[in-house]
Amino acid sequence: MDTHTIGTADTPPSQPEEETPWLTAREQRMWRAHLEVAKLLDYQLSRELQPHNLAINDYEILVVLSEAPDHRMRMTDLATATLQSKSRLSHQITRMENAGLVLRQECPGDRRGLYAHLTEQGWETMQRVAPDHVRSVRAHFIDRFTPEQLDALYEALAPVADHLRGLRGRS
Amino acid sequence: MDTHTIGTADTPPSQPEEETPWLTAREQRMWRAHLEVAKLLDYQLSRELQPHNLAINDYEILVVLSEAPDHRMRMTDLATATLQSKSRLSHQITRMENAGLVLRQECPGDRRGLYAHLTEQGWETMQRVAPDHVRSVRAHFIDRFTPEQLDALYEALAPVADHLRGLRGRS
Repeated sequence: MDTHTIGTADTPPSQPEEETPWLTAREQRMWRAHLEVAKLLDYQLSRELQPHNLAINDYEILVVLSEAPDHRMRMTDLATATLQSKSRLSHQITRMENAGLVLRQECPGDRRGLYAHLTEQGWETMQRVAPDHVRSVRAHFIDRFTPEQLDALYEALAPVADHLRGLRGRS
Repeated sequence: MDTHTIGTADTPPSQPEEETPWLTAREQRMWRAHLEVAKLLDYQLSRELQPHNLAINDYEILVVLSEAPDHRMRMTDLATATLQSKSRLSHQITRMENAGLVLRQECPGDRRGLYAHLTEQGWETMQRVAPDHVRSVRAHFIDRFTPEQLDALYEALAPVADHLRGLRGRS
């Protein structure tokens, strides 16, 4: 949408719904840069995982399970950790189970839930792919910032992540 | 994955494949903050568009078409502008056509292509939804930064967007 400035203070208060706080040009350019980087980086990293036959969400699951005790997590906890809906995660785990990367297991003594368990093949895949993936993340993102920019980005983004995680947790 | 430091310089050069440049703790926390914000913001903005029966990608199409001359664009140009594959865009335009928001039209005198054209209903939908969407973008992102942070984020992210756009254009 075109760039608009915020409505001036002398707009009649009787029409509050018309006072849309449009983004200023400076806000707009930053918003677009964020959207572009998020979308294009996802595309590029996905592309560079393709030779390993992994989608970017698959890789994330492998990382999270490899960090978990006994290489397994309750499906509900895995959905929370990867910020996915349970139904979408379930489809993904089915695909990864067919590829031999994870196994579903019943929780002993817990009728409520299922675990996702990293297989030996899943663990080996993660270890084989991780070095390439780290190089991709460096080449297209991390190494493009100065140390000062890295810290400034973290300071700016971390509170926003906290805010959004809080909203997500309540929904 | 766990935090690793970069391999030291005295690692034997005969084993270059072992010198994976793992992210440092400072790089790692920034990388995770970026990933979380990108994913959670997409989730939250999508959620707040639901009462309008729009997906976030639908909204983006409405914005891009509303800015185009005569409210229409060649499908190939629209795919480039929205950073989508042509096949995925085609499915999305079919859904939006069924909802009455856009129309496909043949390009006069151009056998190669089709236009996507914003309908009157699409235009009205965009104008009705935009104020709410801008408020969402402010509440969950833009207004959470100082003016200095906004500019620093833009300065850091814009060159990365340029880099990634260049890679995408070549693929």
